[in-house]
Amino acid sequence: MTTADSTPHSKLAKYLRDDAVLGSVASIISWDEQTQLPPAATDLRADQSSMLAMMSHKRATAPELGEMIAAAERHVVEQKLGTDSTEATVAREARRDFDRSTKLPADLVEALARAQVVGHQAWVSARKADDFNAFQPHLDNMLGLKRQEADCVGHDGDRYNALLDDYEPGETSTGIEQVFTDLKDELVTLVAKIQDSGRVAPRDILRRHYPVEAQRNLSRQAAQACGFDFDAGRLDVAVHPFCTGIGPGDTRLTTRFDEHEFAGAFFGTLHETGHGLYEQNLPKIEHFGNGCGMAISLGIHESQSRTWENPVGRSQAFWEHFWPIARKFFPAALNDVRTDDFLFAINDVRPSFIRVESDEATYNLHILLRFELERAMLSGDLNVADLPGAWNERMQKYLGITPSKDSLGCLQDVHWSAGYLGYFPTYTLGNLYGAQFFESVTTHLGGEAERDSMFARGEFQPLLDWLITHIHSKGRRSSARELVNTVTGRELTAQPLLNHLKRKAAEFYGV
Amino acid sequence: MTTADSTPHSKLAKYLRDDAVLGSVASIISWDEQTQLPPAATDLRADQSSMLAMMSHKRATAPELGEMIAAAERHVVEQKLGTDSTEATVAREARRDFDRSTKLPADLVEALARAQVVGHQAWVSARKADDFNAFQPHLDNMLGLKRQEADCVGHDGDRYNALLDDYEPGETSTGIEQVFTDLKDELVTLVAKIQDSGRVAPRDILRRHYPVEAQRNLSRQAAQACGFDFDAGRLDVAVHPFCTGIGPGDTRLTTRFDEHEFAGAFFGTLHETGHGLYEQNLPKIEHFGNGCGMAISLGIHESQSRTWENPVGRSQAFWEHFWPIARKFFPAALNDVRTDDFLFAINDVRPSFIRVESDEATYNLHILLRFELERAMLSGDLNVADLPGAWNERMQKYLGITPSKDSLGCLQDVHWSAGYLGYFPTYTLGNLYGAQFFESVTTHLGGEAERDSMFARGEFQPLLDWLITHIHSKGRRSSARELVNTVTGRELTAQPLLNHLKRKAAEFYGV
Repeated sequence: MTTADSTPHSKLAKYLRDDAVLGSVASIISWDEQTQLPPAATDLRADQSSMLAMMSHKRATAPELGEMIAAAERHVVEQKLGTDSTEATVAREARRDFDRSTKLPADLVEALARAQVVGHQAWVSARKADDFNAFQPHLDNMLGLKRQEADCVGHDGDRYNALLDDYEPGETSTGIEQVFTDLKDELVTLVAKIQDSGRVAPRDILRRHYPVEAQRNLSRQAAQACGFDFDAGRLDVAVHPFCTGIGPGDTRLTTRFDEHEFAGAFFGTLHETGHGLYEQNLPKIEHFGNGCGMAISLGIHESQSRTWENPVGRSQAFWEHFWPIARKFFPAALNDVRTDDFLFAINDVRPSFIRVESDEATYNLHILLRFELERAMLSGDLNVADLPGAWNERMQKYLGITPSKDSLGCLQDVHWSAGYLGYFPTYTLGNLYGAQFFESVTTHLGGEAERDSMFARGEFQPLLDWLITHIHSKGRRSSARELVNTVTGRELTAQPLLNHLKRKAAEFYGV
Repeated sequence: MTTADSTPHSKLAKYLRDDAVLGSVASIISWDEQTQLPPAATDLRADQSSMLAMMSHKRATAPELGEMIAAAERHVVEQKLGTDSTEATVAREARRDFDRSTKLPADLVEALARAQVVGHQAWVSARKADDFNAFQPHLDNMLGLKRQEADCVGHDGDRYNALLDDYEPGETSTGIEQVFTDLKDELVTLVAKIQDSGRVAPRDILRRHYPVEAQRNLSRQAAQACGFDFDAGRLDVAVHPFCTGIGPGDTRLTTRFDEHEFAGAFFGTLHETGHGLYEQNLPKIEHFGNGCGMAISLGIHESQSRTWENPVGRSQAFWEHFWPIARKFFPAALNDVRTDDFLFAINDVRPSFIRVESDEATYNLHILLRFELERAMLSGDLNVADLPGAWNERMQKYLGITPSKDSLGCLQDVHWSAGYLGYFPTYTLGNLYGAQFFESVTTHLGGEAERDSMFARGEFQPLLDWLITHIHSKGRRSSARELVNTVTGRELTAQPLLNHLKRKAAEFYGV
C-alpha cells in the first residue's frame, strides 16, 4: 500500500522540489551578483557560486535520484498514464535532466568549464583589440569539446541536435532549417524593398533627454499594465538585462537606463516582462522543480518576451493607451512629437551590424546567419579560420552591408566563447512561435479590430489569460512543436511572422 | 611529514572556511529578505533559509569536524603555541562553537526553534493588544527552555552565564553587575540633575522636512568619510536596520529614512558604519571563517558602532566639518538654525519609555533594568507574572517615569520572545568598552584638542587606523575583557563612559 506521500511520483517530486529550492538560492546569488555585488566581493562570490553548483551537481547526479526516476517511470507504465499526465511529465523531464547530467564524464565537464572561463576572457580581449586570430584557437578548442559533449549525450548522426536539445528539447537542425529557409527567402527581399523605399524613420526623437526616474516609472507602469505582479517580483538595473524566475512568488526583471535614449530601457523592460509573465504563471506552487512547473524551452520562453515587446509593445493600439502617459512623463522630449512619427521611429527597419541593437525584422537575419555558421563549424564544413570571411559574405547577402571589422562582425557575441552552441536559433524560433500564437489569440479575442480596441483601452488581461491557459499553465507537458500544433491547430510555419512583418512594412514604408 | 596544506591547523581552517562560504550564502539570503524580497516570496524564502540552516548545522556538528579540532588542539599543545597564536585561536574558537552546537539535544533545538516562532507571533499580537497576560505563558515557556539550554551547555551554578557566553564569551553576570552598578549609581543622579536643570533642547529642528534623497547622500558621504569602503560594501534600506559582514569584500549596511526626521537615519547610518568598519577590517581574506577573522563579541562589536555614532558623530568637532555640508543638503530645513542649537538637539538627554528611541545617556538605564529583570526571571527570583510591576517600579526609580501601559514597558522589545536572554547587557558593555577605548585613542592622537581638530578637518583615518591596529586586526585572539586590558592598560570600569556623559551634561545642561 502506498500513501499519497510515498508514491514513486511523490517521492521524486519531493526530491526535485528540494533541488529547486537549492537552485533558487543559486538564482538569488546570481541575481545579487548582477545587480548588487560590491566590486571587491567577486572572489567570495565565485566561491559561493561554485559551492552551490557543486552541491546541485551532486544532487542532480545522485544514484538514489536515478532509482527514484526508474521507479516513477515503472509506475507510469504500470498505470498506463498518458504522456501529458503529471506523473509522466515529471518522470520524463527528470529522466532527461538526469541522463544529460550523468552522461558527461567529470573530466569533460571540467574541461568545458575551464574553456568557458579562458575562452570568455580571450573573447573579451579579442573583441577589444579587434583581433580574430587571438580568439580563433579558443573557438577551435571549444568546438572540439562541444563535439565530445554531443557524442557523450548521443545523437542521430548530427551533433548539432545533441547541443540544440539542451535549449530546445526535441528540436532538430533540419526542422529549423526548413522553417528558417522559408523565412529567409521572403525576409531578405522584404528588407531590401524597405531599404529601396527611400523612407527613413525619425529615430532622433528617441535620442532626446529622457530622465531616468521617469523612464523607471513608465517602465514599471507598463510592466504592471501587462500583468506583471510586483507583489511577486521586482524590477532592477543590470548591465546585461535579464529575467530570473527564482521560484514561487519571486520573479525578478532587470533593465538598464540611458537618459539619452528611450527605446532600449522601455522595450527591454517589456521584453523581460514577457519572460516574467511566463515565470509568474507557471504552476510553481504545486510543481516547483518538476517538469509540470517548468518552461518548455528557450524558444517558447522567447516567444513570450517577443510577443509583449513587439506585436503588443510596438503596436499602434498599445500606444493609443500609453502615448498620453508617456507625454506626461517626458513633456520636454515628446511635446512636439506627432504620434505617427513616434510609431514610425519605434518600428524602424534598417540593416545594421550589431544583433542586439537591430530591429524586429532584420534581427532574424542576424540569427539565420549565426545558425548556418555555427552548424557548419561544428560539422567541420567551415574552418574556424574562414569564419570572418563567411560571416561578412552572408551579411552582404542577407542585409546588404559588410562590417569593416570583426568586432562589428563575428566577434560581437559572447555565446560561442561560452560554449553556447545551438542557442542562437531559439531567438528566432521565439519570434516564429510568438507570431503564430498571436494569430490564434487574435482570433480568440474576436479579430484584429477587437484586440486592438482592448489594447487601446489598456486592457491586456484577456491576452495574458489566453497565454496562461494555453501556454504558461502547461509547464513541460508537451514539446514546443507539439504545443504549437495543439494551440494553433497547425504545424509551425514562417507565414505568421512574415505576415506580421509585411503588414508593418506596408504601413510604414509603403512596400 | 606534514606539508603546509595538510597540517591539522590548515585542514581545520579549510573546513571552517567552507562553512563560512556556506554561511555567507545564508547571509545574502537574509539580507535579501530584509531589503529586496517581494511579499509573495516569504514561503519560498523560509524553505531556502531552513535548507541552508540544516546544511550548516550538519557541517557544524559533523564528527569529522570534532576529530579535526582535537587534532588541531593536540598540535597546539605539542608545539607549545601561545593562546593568542593563530593556531591556538583557531582551535579554541572552533572548539567553543562545536561544543555549543553538539551539546544541545535535537529535541531541545527543535523546541527552542518552535518556541521562537510561536513566541514571536504571540509577542507581536500581545504588544499590539497591550495584553501582557497573553504573552506571559510564552515567556514562561521560553524561560524554561533557556534553563534547559543553560544546563546542557554547562555553567558554574549561574545559568545566566551559560546564555551570556553565547553573545559575550567569557563574561559573567557578576562581572557585569559590578561595572553596571558603578554606572547606575552615578548615572541615575546625573539624569535627574539634567531633568532638574530646566534646559530643554530644541528638538523640533530635527523634525522638519529632510528630503530622503539628500539624507541618503549625506549618510553615504558621512559613512565614506569615516572610512567605510563602498567598493566592498553597500548602504540600503531595511525596516529594522542592521549591518551584515557577509565575507571578504562584502559588508552591507542598512538604514531607514523618514523625510520628517533627520537624526534616525543619520545616526543610524553612523552606528551601522561602525559595525561595518569592524567587519571590513577584520582579517577575513586570510582568516575567513576561523577565530582570527571573527569579531570578539557582540559587546566589542557594539563598542565600534557606538563610538562612531556618539563620541564621534555627536561631537562638536565632527559637526564643524559636516555642518556646512548638511546645510547644503538641507537648505530649507537648516538655513535658520544655529550650530549650537543643532548640537544641543542631537545631544538632548530626556527620559523616555522606548529604549530604541532613547538618548546616549538614558539608554544605559534601559539596559540595566532589562539585565536585572531577565537575570531575576531566569533564576526564578522574579515570577513572570510580576514582570510588569517590577519593570514599572524600576523605570520610576531609574528614569523618574512610569509607562502607562505594557506596550510602552515590558512588551516593547522583541528579544525575550525570540529567546535572546543575555543579549541586552552587550549594548551597554559596548558603550563602556567604547568609552574606555576612546580615552586611549584620544591620548594616542595627542589629546582632546588635537583629536578634535582632526575631526573638524574631516580626518577620521587616524582614529580608524588605531581601531584597526588594536581591535579589528586581532580577531578573537583574546576575550573582550583581555582586549580592554591590553589596549587601555587597565580593567574595564564605568568611569570613561561616566566622564564622557558628565562632560556633555555640563556643556549642554550646565550640571
